[in-house]
Amino acid sequence: MDYVARFETLIGEMKLDGRYRTFIELERLAGEFPTALRREPDGSARRVTVWCSNDYLGMGQNAEVLAAMHGAIDQFGAGTGGTRNISGTNRSHVALETELADLHGKEAALIFTSGWISNLAALGTLGRVLPNCAIFSDALNHNSMIEGIRRSGAERFIFRHNDAAHLDELMSAVDPDRPKIVAFESVYSMDGDVAPIAAICDVADKHGAITYLDEVHAVGLYGPRGGGIAEREGLSHRLTVIEGTLAKAFGVMGGYVAGSALLIDVIRSCADSFIFTTSICPHLAAGAAAAIRHLKDSGEERALQQAAVDKLIVMLRAADMPVPDTQSHIVPLIIGDAHLCKATSDLLLASHDIYVQPINYPTVARGQERLRLTPTPFHTEAHMKALVDALVDARARLGWNNRLLAA
Amino acid sequence: MDYVARFETLIGEMKLDGRYRTFIELERLAGEFPTALRREPDGSARRVTVWCSNDYLGMGQNAEVLAAMHGAIDQFGAGTGGTRNISGTNRSHVALETELADLHGKEAALIFTSGWISNLAALGTLGRVLPNCAIFSDALNHNSMIEGIRRSGAERFIFRHNDAAHLDELMSAVDPDRPKIVAFESVYSMDGDVAPIAAICDVADKHGAITYLDEVHAVGLYGPRGGGIAEREGLSHRLTVIEGTLAKAFGVMGGYVAGSALLIDVIRSCADSFIFTTSICPHLAAGAAAAIRHLKDSGEERALQQAAVDKLIVMLRAADMPVPDTQSHIVPLIIGDAHLCKATSDLLLASHDIYVQPINYPTVARGQERLRLTPTPFHTEAHMKALVDALVDARARLGWNNRLLAA
Repeated sequence: MDYVARFETLIGEMKLDGRYRTFIELERLAGEFPTALRREPDGSARRVTVWCSNDYLGMGQNAEVLAAMHGAIDQFGAGTGGTRNISGTNRSHVALETELADLHGKEAALIFTSGWISNLAALGTLGRVLPNCAIFSDALNHNSMIEGIRRSGAERFIFRHNDAAHLDELMSAVDPDRPKIVAFESVYSMDGDVAPIAAICDVADKHGAITYLDEVHAVGLYGPRGGGIAEREGLSHRLTVIEGTLAKAFGVMGGYVAGSALLIDVIRSCADSFIFTTSICPHLAAGAAAAIRHLKDSGEERALQQAAVDKLIVMLRAADMPVPDTQSHIVPLIIGDAHLCKATSDLLLASHDIYVQPINYPTVARGQERLRLTPTPFHTEAHMKALVDALVDARARLGWNNRLLAA
Repeated sequence: MDYVARFETLIGEMKLDGRYRTFIELERLAGEFPTALRREPDGSARRVTVWCSNDYLGMGQNAEVLAAMHGAIDQFGAGTGGTRNISGTNRSHVALETELADLHGKEAALIFTSGWISNLAALGTLGRVLPNCAIFSDALNHNSMIEGIRRSGAERFIFRHNDAAHLDELMSAVDPDRPKIVAFESVYSMDGDVAPIAAICDVADKHGAITYLDEVHAVGLYGPRGGGIAEREGLSHRLTVIEGTLAKAFGVMGGYVAGSALLIDVIRSCADSFIFTTSICPHLAAGAAAAIRHLKDSGEERALQQAAVDKLIVMLRAADMPVPDTQSHIVPLIIGDAHLCKATSDLLLASHDIYVQPINYPTVARGQERLRLTPTPFHTEAHMKALVDALVDARARLGWNNRLLAA
């Protein structure tokens, strides 16, 4: 076996196909978000405006968050040196879990090193410990949910995106006595569209299913206390499990699930990916808890973000930019071609010091390649004008094919 | 389906079986390691000595590490707000990867949110992209390696623990043209025994296999620069992939793999668990890099740790404690019964303010239940005397059955 040849072929195919990723080396600047330094390979640096961050509210530079982290490092040191079970449970983990349970109106919560792992652990465990379980999964669910379902070994049924009627149809065809889980997201990352949570819960209830809602693109952003779309719509109590992240609106890293004390104990006790891993650093838990507490009390960041989203959409449409309707804070600009999408991103960076990563297959379907814009409270009208001008320039120079563009 | 009843049965079985875990809530005290505060449910706190931490060298409180973390938080803020590909690559990630590649004498390295994920991602990817791959796995490999092999879909062959002859036998029975990976660890976590790396590499070479070595319990601790057992034995160049952690001897959190630039590019480009997750916080990368740099230059921590290990073993044996020979820094004290092991741990904590978590099935085989002691440079002779006295007391009060004890 010629391993080198095999690996070279694999990478070569990705490059030909426009799927090969090159990482942009940045230095975020605390206090100057969304500005960052972009390092060139020769070591020189340029200031760029970041338009594609999931630090949706800029909490990654929030003074209370950073102070909590500094304080916890001084108090507890860096890592925990152990799994949660073997010397790795710190008081700040327990405090954060209490904060998260309260945020979602649940009895308990459990934190993980990432949102990806929280989905793998929770769905992987629930689908495994329930004998002959059937999991019903939205067609656009995130990779981490798909991996969790796969790991569980449960039978998977895919319902059409946000289609409660199709879900009902699929569930009706399955033995009523089988345990069932309905797994879906509230805000979908790439289109910014929102699930019909009540309708999906109605179907799940009719068939006696556990409801599992991924709110990673919603926690901190929606609801009077930042509890997500479910909180905004008064539906938190209808979800068996709410999964979220500490790495987007809360500005730090890590993931979690919230639910009944018994269900959380099952995941805590049975998920290998939780049991056999070093717990997150105490200061990360302290920083995330500070962000959550801040956003429970303050609606200002949410209001400023929504105002920025509204303003940007108006400005983009005034320039005839292809922006579909969005129900959330995510503004997709559809280019519809992998190479053109990459070329637009390159041109924005090289000529305008604006950084928006191209989103290509497999993150979105072919033909749906896009720039995914995420306005935050810190994107000013001047930032927006510069972005729109740069996009107008890119369109003129690259000759976007308007046939491909969504209305 | 009565989900509550099913979950209650599951948890009830674990409790009956001695497998149910209760987490001890600690506050590590930076600057006072191995002392920590143990919080009681009523909020009161007692100072305890931790004897079961994987912060093997106390780098979790090292001044250079903490200063690097504080500095990076001030400079970059908290989280990155993105995956590595979408605005989440920070200069400190790249610097850490360069540091790790150098540590292991490899062209490249890639960091992950945990060691668990690094094994899932690397083995899961390599076994998947090599058509019809056969993976040969040591019988005592860590859960994360097993999960990676499972995820890859490759056929798995389990060789007897540390048995190169059995590996050869298994490999000889497989089609010579199939791609092959030999996956093993250098220091095994629970017995502290060390793999015959050269003999295993000889067998792997004979059969044209990739060699994959997990050094999580060795990096920072062995070799003149802390490159692990492979470095100590001059064998780094014989390993295709070296996997390690930032969460044990380096005191922070996260994991990594090091290897050729091409192989690392394949993992970087194909591993879903890497692609679809927010990157680790820049200050964690900065802290880990500081720990690695420190331990490349300083052998002092390693020398002090080994002296502490030697001294503790002498003291334990002088008190007729059941300590098998260890080839590393891990000192297992075999109790051989789940309930007795838990009772010993409880007694040490309640009566002596000493914290050693019991290690029961499934982490070790039934009958091999143990206390796993990890002396560090910060465990003094007074700490050791208190531990031995406490164990003598526990033995007298609990009546350990000497039949069960390893020599």
